[in-house]
Amino acid sequence: MQPLPAINPSRRILLGPGPSMVHPRVLQAMATPLLGHLDPEFLAIMDDIQKALRWLFHTQNTLTIPISGTGSSAMEAAIVNLVEPGDAVIVGINGIFGTRLASMVERCGGQAIRLEVPWGQPLNPEHIGHHLKATTPIKAVAIVHAETSTGVHQPLEHIGQLCQQHEVLYIVDTVTSLGGMEVNVDAWHIDVCYSATQKCISCPPGVAPITFSDRAVHSIRQRQSPCTSWYLDCSLISDYWSESKRTYHHTAPISMAYALRESLRLIQEEGLEARIARHQRNSHALLAGLNTLGFELFPLASFTLTTLLCVRLPPFLDDLHARKVLLKEFHIEVGGGLGPLARKVWRIGLMGESSREEYILTLLSALEQILTRDYGQTPTGISMKAAMDIWNQPHSSLSTFPPSNN
Amino acid sequence: MQPLPAINPSRRILLGPGPSMVHPRVLQAMATPLLGHLDPEFLAIMDDIQKALRWLFHTQNTLTIPISGTGSSAMEAAIVNLVEPGDAVIVGINGIFGTRLASMVERCGGQAIRLEVPWGQPLNPEHIGHHLKATTPIKAVAIVHAETSTGVHQPLEHIGQLCQQHEVLYIVDTVTSLGGMEVNVDAWHIDVCYSATQKCISCPPGVAPITFSDRAVHSIRQRQSPCTSWYLDCSLISDYWSESKRTYHHTAPISMAYALRESLRLIQEEGLEARIARHQRNSHALLAGLNTLGFELFPLASFTLTTLLCVRLPPFLDDLHARKVLLKEFHIEVGGGLGPLARKVWRIGLMGESSREEYILTLLSALEQILTRDYGQTPTGISMKAAMDIWNQPHSSLSTFPPSNN
Repeated sequence: MQPLPAINPSRRILLGPGPSMVHPRVLQAMATPLLGHLDPEFLAIMDDIQKALRWLFHTQNTLTIPISGTGSSAMEAAIVNLVEPGDAVIVGINGIFGTRLASMVERCGGQAIRLEVPWGQPLNPEHIGHHLKATTPIKAVAIVHAETSTGVHQPLEHIGQLCQQHEVLYIVDTVTSLGGMEVNVDAWHIDVCYSATQKCISCPPGVAPITFSDRAVHSIRQRQSPCTSWYLDCSLISDYWSESKRTYHHTAPISMAYALRESLRLIQEEGLEARIARHQRNSHALLAGLNTLGFELFPLASFTLTTLLCVRLPPFLDDLHARKVLLKEFHIEVGGGLGPLARKVWRIGLMGESSREEYILTLLSALEQILTRDYGQTPTGISMKAAMDIWNQPHSSLSTFPPSNN
Repeated sequence: MQPLPAINPSRRILLGPGPSMVHPRVLQAMATPLLGHLDPEFLAIMDDIQKALRWLFHTQNTLTIPISGTGSSAMEAAIVNLVEPGDAVIVGINGIFGTRLASMVERCGGQAIRLEVPWGQPLNPEHIGHHLKATTPIKAVAIVHAETSTGVHQPLEHIGQLCQQHEVLYIVDTVTSLGGMEVNVDAWHIDVCYSATQKCISCPPGVAPITFSDRAVHSIRQRQSPCTSWYLDCSLISDYWSESKRTYHHTAPISMAYALRESLRLIQEEGLEARIARHQRNSHALLAGLNTLGFELFPLASFTLTTLLCVRLPPFLDDLHARKVLLKEFHIEVGGGLGPLARKVWRIGLMGESSREEYILTLLSALEQILTRDYGQTPTGISMKAAMDIWNQPHSSLSTFPPSNN
């Protein structure tokens, strides 16, 4: 067979729903020669990662680890470890990822009680509270913090209190929020919280952080039937991550662990508060710019993510044409709509390293050029001006975007 | 939180059961800036990987892809896609990994019919044939080609013929053989064959090649119940890998795909026959050297792997002490024994980039120094001499190690 040529990918500005841009130091970490997965030096790196993840999740949970797969594998790990055949799980659905959670519950024999609200809206805690009272017994409530398919930010704290009251496990998807928005596992009474690396953590996809409360671990230990997945069985995986055991389970993805550690280190250096504020400020600036060009926020402003903006396209704009031009001519990736939102919205991620003024200006400039050339408009810099106006405001005045609503 | 310091891992010579050494070009590929997982340039990389994997597996199978996890996730993908509740699967067990296969069969509701032989021996095809005749209906036979826990090479072709005759699916684990030993999926009638990247392919762990025959794909499409895993459900994953669909399933591990492509490219450049011959020659040389120092092959010579040697320790050698010295002073990793073989054997991997004369000489030299210093022996270079004698033989005379026994 004729050997393949070398790869030579074009340089992209990644402003889609993930992967986000990766810092050169993280890329460099990936190129570090490997240690064995039981090498004492690698075990020390695992310890570092666990400590940093606990810090990022705001938790004291012992079982806080990266799953050896992408974000969806952590979603599956959350479900298959906690749900046994016959268990009823309330699943909040307001987009693609809630639907996925429900499918996973059913595949491992559980009963998914779907609480659906229209795409673009958050779930109402009172609605969940009603079902917790009416239906018994409920094993868990599963909900998505940051719906990547709609750009909706789901407030979490109130639902956590309800789960606590009803002694029900609380499972939360923070794939598109962890590392870019506040996620407070212990204070919000979350029992299982998982994320992905290729969003606000800005590490390539391939490992996925997850944390289990002691209550969740107890529930796993009390299972009547084995976890349907051997690969994701946290009662086994935890023995590899336990400092006193280190029992081999599967070979950890060494290079991805290097990358995750370096990404977490960059977050520590920036500081979590500063990072969250940067995501707020930049999403506000991009939205101001987009508004001047005719894009409108899809969710209510008070429930928008600051890590990913889901915006309705101006009626005249051809989705496929514009995204193709953005990618081919300007090397900018933005995400299209999924399911019922296909062709109607864009999902623009400003996550981690992608949440930078330079990329926002480049995107707005590219859009102005497309509107001028292909749609006969003359925006003349208004969108970039609008973004700059936000950046020039004192930081404190931005704290109301979006209103704090945990 | 005080930011972590930078990582600075010691340089290791990886001669354990994996991960193996990684070529600098593969490390470099990992540091390549990311494309999105639906970027046309990334889709082209996926096509390249599929074609190269088909070449490596010796198959025409359309559904030939890397699973987004380590080798054990591909093992799980093989089982959960094909086994439905109540399905009977004959599992050959002569080490840890057969046992793992049986556990996976049972976790997804199947019935594992365990055919066990003592560790260190291969399974007898006649024994499997007997069970195929006696027990009906059987859905599949699952077997390990290269048992990493014992160093045993399982001949595959005869069992494939039996499965073909009985119209039973044939699942084969080639985690420790693919890329280092002959694996001939189509000619040997294998229906599902999976591997790992961090062994003979010498790519970091994190993705795992798998291939499904049309017969296996048909069986997946005919399932009565959904696959217990959403993440590993190949009826969904195949739509992302299909050139005509590209339906989003989960975010592919981009950097790992770059690395796998570069690793496959290196194998193409070397040539598969030359690579397999290199593994034969080098394992022969290492074994000759080890024999002079008192190590004895654990499996029968005619059934040893050429990618991983499992050797009994000389009676006087303290396993933990010697491995600790090798790692700390010589930066060489070798693997200890698992389960009943703990403290009794070493598992020395000569896989992919680790199968090099320089590493073999370094290991033998280190062992001679340990034997001299800590055990009062005076080997005076005999082991390196024995290895060199093998390398100095004409290549053709080595074709009998081990005898060809597919």
